[in-house]
Amino acid sequence: MSIAFRKELRDLKPYVPGKPIESVMKEFGIKNVIKLASNENPLGFSEKVKEILMKSLDNLALYPDGNATNLKEALSEKLDIDVDNILPSSGADEMIDLIAKTVISPGDEAITADITFPRYISTTKMMGGTPIVVPLKNFTFDLNGILNNITNRTKLIWICNPNNPTGTIVTEKELMDFFEKVPENILIVYDEAYREYVTRDDYPKNSIEFVKKYPNILVMRTFSKAYGLAGLRVAYAIGSKKIIENINKVRGPFNVNSLAQIAAIAALKDDEFLERIYNLNLEGKNYLYDQFKNMNLEFPPSEANHIYVNVGKDAQEVFVELQKRGVIIRPMGGTWIRVSVGTMEENRTFIEKLKEVLGM
Amino acid sequence: MSIAFRKELRDLKPYVPGKPIESVMKEFGIKNVIKLASNENPLGFSEKVKEILMKSLDNLALYPDGNATNLKEALSEKLDIDVDNILPSSGADEMIDLIAKTVISPGDEAITADITFPRYISTTKMMGGTPIVVPLKNFTFDLNGILNNITNRTKLIWICNPNNPTGTIVTEKELMDFFEKVPENILIVYDEAYREYVTRDDYPKNSIEFVKKYPNILVMRTFSKAYGLAGLRVAYAIGSKKIIENINKVRGPFNVNSLAQIAAIAALKDDEFLERIYNLNLEGKNYLYDQFKNMNLEFPPSEANHIYVNVGKDAQEVFVELQKRGVIIRPMGGTWIRVSVGTMEENRTFIEKLKEVLGM
Repeated sequence: MSIAFRKELRDLKPYVPGKPIESVMKEFGIKNVIKLASNENPLGFSEKVKEILMKSLDNLALYPDGNATNLKEALSEKLDIDVDNILPSSGADEMIDLIAKTVISPGDEAITADITFPRYISTTKMMGGTPIVVPLKNFTFDLNGILNNITNRTKLIWICNPNNPTGTIVTEKELMDFFEKVPENILIVYDEAYREYVTRDDYPKNSIEFVKKYPNILVMRTFSKAYGLAGLRVAYAIGSKKIIENINKVRGPFNVNSLAQIAAIAALKDDEFLERIYNLNLEGKNYLYDQFKNMNLEFPPSEANHIYVNVGKDAQEVFVELQKRGVIIRPMGGTWIRVSVGTMEENRTFIEKLKEVLGM
Repeated sequence: MSIAFRKELRDLKPYVPGKPIESVMKEFGIKNVIKLASNENPLGFSEKVKEILMKSLDNLALYPDGNATNLKEALSEKLDIDVDNILPSSGADEMIDLIAKTVISPGDEAITADITFPRYISTTKMMGGTPIVVPLKNFTFDLNGILNNITNRTKLIWICNPNNPTGTIVTEKELMDFFEKVPENILIVYDEAYREYVTRDDYPKNSIEFVKKYPNILVMRTFSKAYGLAGLRVAYAIGSKKIIENINKVRGPFNVNSLAQIAAIAALKDDEFLERIYNLNLEGKNYLYDQFKNMNLEFPPSEANHIYVNVGKDAQEVFVELQKRGVIIRPMGGTWIRVSVGTMEENRTFIEKLKEVLGM
């Protein structure tokens, strides 16, 4: 008899991450490869972060501060909320895992969209929960559709705003209305990974207010996108003390590494860097919009640093063909791909190669 | 109605890590504080690791390689086992969480010792399992006691060798005999976090052989102890492809940060550093043994970098009194404390302050 793994695992597959540049170089024997597959920051990260990291390489033999005291204090000050309402994690990936472990039991339901960040669904399944998937409406989270799917088994609602991969948003007004209607015993996870890129005025500017008003909302933010620290793994959640206290029970004692804590604190202080990436992203988006229009490709306008676009040809095939030409994007379902906004040079190369692949 | 958290959480408490030096300094208003509480490396870590880290601070905006390709290849070569038998994690803490999520369902039993690394028990509970706790025998894992506690509900056995906190070992012969008797459908996790400090010849030198012989053994090793990289969070497990494949299903996609992967590869190449810390630890242990004997304090000889010692006085009280004097140790149950072996200067300061506290 061999080991019986948990039955919840039967339906799970390991996550397939965007291909690393190095392996594409090897596979196709090419030298110049650009990666527009993982919504990373084309400007890198703040010089101020690098400076502090250079000075922080001596104490790595000590365990990280398991309480992330200094990072929590820096966030507390910046966000004007108590330290006990804040919980840093090793990227949003870890936070999503912790949330599922905190609330999902076998038979519970968790509602989300059909086309959104896939970890919401896999961690729900991992804990024996049933993901209830509400189709996007006009590429956007359908909040009314979600309300209509609430049952007495619903434990959790995952909202991604702006949504990954479509880049669409639900507005502050729509959200406030939605929050009023969701029963307070359902945890609403409000994932704002791409918030720093949003241009629209009707997007909620200060989601901390949600947390202050509703005891069942957990806001998630990350340092992996606009702050450019994906390699270090650091994100955080903001919610009621009760939620944070319970997530803490399933958290590993030293989940956020020492350098990630130090880097995040420094990153919070460099608003100028955020402004630069915001502007570059806007320029890139407008360029890509124009090009897609010229090429007659359908896409929803994006409030994030990535665009969801219908290339009218099997996405997997386009993915492979672009790779051969040194461009990595992310194939989605059917004929849709997701492309991250890169530097202007990367954006131009992508369009050039895409035209080649589509025979334009 | 408020959020109903998983019932498994009721019995869980957040892990209380060893106090950071900074907070002890603040609390007691003292300047010189030594920490002998978390079995960290008093020599720090390899200079070769620092060199490579200094050069690796530019690509942090990219996600880590989710497959940890280069680290797995370096380990594969060093250990002479296939890359598919290896899985890096964000410290052993994360691996223990992943293991519990892979095999423990409500009602399952997991056997371990009463006095050992506490995360085995908390992660078992987190997944709804029942920890079956077999008392240490002569401060040592009681393998026969564990065999006697196997039922048809047993899914997992956690072995820590050398054991934390007692520093004792079970021998290769005892283990081989034990492995033969454990049914193959039970996963045996063999945690060797302190293996690099062992001096005894009857300790298993090459546990990879266990993995090659038995499909149900998962060996865990870490870079947090002898390699001195606790702050970066990196460890790994070695086991059958089937076990690794299943753990991979519950693993976060980018669990090991980029710098941890780079540092671990460099650390593997510096055997000279391991030799230095081995020798320093041996010198420190012998010094502490002599002192404890002079003070008539009971302790089991340790094969690790920490000693479990009976101070004959309430451990919590001794912990607080030592803290006031600038020494942080780890209070255990009753009158037992665990002290990490430090530099010779730290060891001497600890003994001096301990004598003060015990009125000797």
